[in-house]
Amino acid sequence: MIFGLSILVIDDNKIRASIIEQGLRDAGHDRVMLVHQMGGLLRQIADINPDVIVIDLENPNRDQLEHMFQVSRAVRRPIAMFVDKSDSHSIEAAVDAGVSAYVVDGLKRERVKPILDMAISRFRAFSKLTEELEEARSELADRKTIDRAKGILMKSKGLSEQEAYDLLRRSAMNQSRKIIDVARSLVIASGLLED
Amino acid sequence: MIFGLSILVIDDNKIRASIIEQGLRDAGHDRVMLVHQMGGLLRQIADINPDVIVIDLENPNRDQLEHMFQVSRAVRRPIAMFVDKSDSHSIEAAVDAGVSAYVVDGLKRERVKPILDMAISRFRAFSKLTEELEEARSELADRKTIDRAKGILMKSKGLSEQEAYDLLRRSAMNQSRKIIDVARSLVIASGLLED
Repeated sequence: MIFGLSILVIDDNKIRASIIEQGLRDAGHDRVMLVHQMGGLLRQIADINPDVIVIDLENPNRDQLEHMFQVSRAVRRPIAMFVDKSDSHSIEAAVDAGVSAYVVDGLKRERVKPILDMAISRFRAFSKLTEELEEARSELADRKTIDRAKGILMKSKGLSEQEAYDLLRRSAMNQSRKIIDVARSLVIASGLLED
Repeated sequence: MIFGLSILVIDDNKIRASIIEQGLRDAGHDRVMLVHQMGGLLRQIADINPDVIVIDLENPNRDQLEHMFQVSRAVRRPIAMFVDKSDSHSIEAAVDAGVSAYVVDGLKRERVKPILDMAISRFRAFSKLTEELEEARSELADRKTIDRAKGILMKSKGLSEQEAYDLLRRSAMNQSRKIIDVARSLVIASGLLED
């Protein structure tokens, strides 16, 4: 049970919105906001700044669905989305857009809480994996940049690898910068100065 | 629509199993197998070798649920799981165990197909991300190993970095092995020979 979450419910159908709202309040969530206007949605979301978003689309056409997938890609928050019908293409598109729970034909007051929990768990698991990937890739890229910088110094100044690294490190210390920043500057400058 | 998938339905309740089976057959899936025995499940799954697994647990106790999460971790296939009730702890555990679709109180013949589609899409997205992470980490680890091997050669043989790398490369070529394999052997051997 997660208390204290602020939850934004986006739904232009007020009856369905109240089903969702009731399901959330039954589960002890009292920070529930409703939005019925689909215009300027990203702006509204930014203003409200909710922890979780629930979107109910009933029977969306392709454009409405794509609009919501764009919202999903932009907001980087757990999103649960309810639709009454869906083809497998849209299901795949929803997953690709980072919709944490995409529920076809499953809107029921009692189900709102477990679906919200699921959306939050999936969002966390996905974010963790994505962060780990970004870290690993950035560490690899940094290592490559430092190797290139060392190579440039070894060639241009006739240094050994160790001497090149020491020079990078000293230069970083003197400028109160990180080695990777100095290495990056060197690689960029070297590209400019070539030819 | 994905035809031709072989789908294993695991359910000790034959009435609920037939709801799932009918939902799958309505959607054009004709390679559906049923398992009603929960004993030796991993063995049965290995023998049947399905593309996708649907598990229905109705009202599982904690042990039954944990058993199925172990199955999920072991089989590395899209899994959709139906339960009638769940707390948020179990929902999180399901996500952690790689259950692609964990559906609380949502078993309905018409919903089986979209849930199966969802499980497959999520499984693919998750697998792709996991593979990318493994690749990035393995590339980083390889680079570190090669750097350590170069360092060992530079120190023990008084070589420059370039000479050390050339020696690794020549040695790999002569033995028809990869540079990373030679580097790994050198690092391991050097650990053995120290002291």
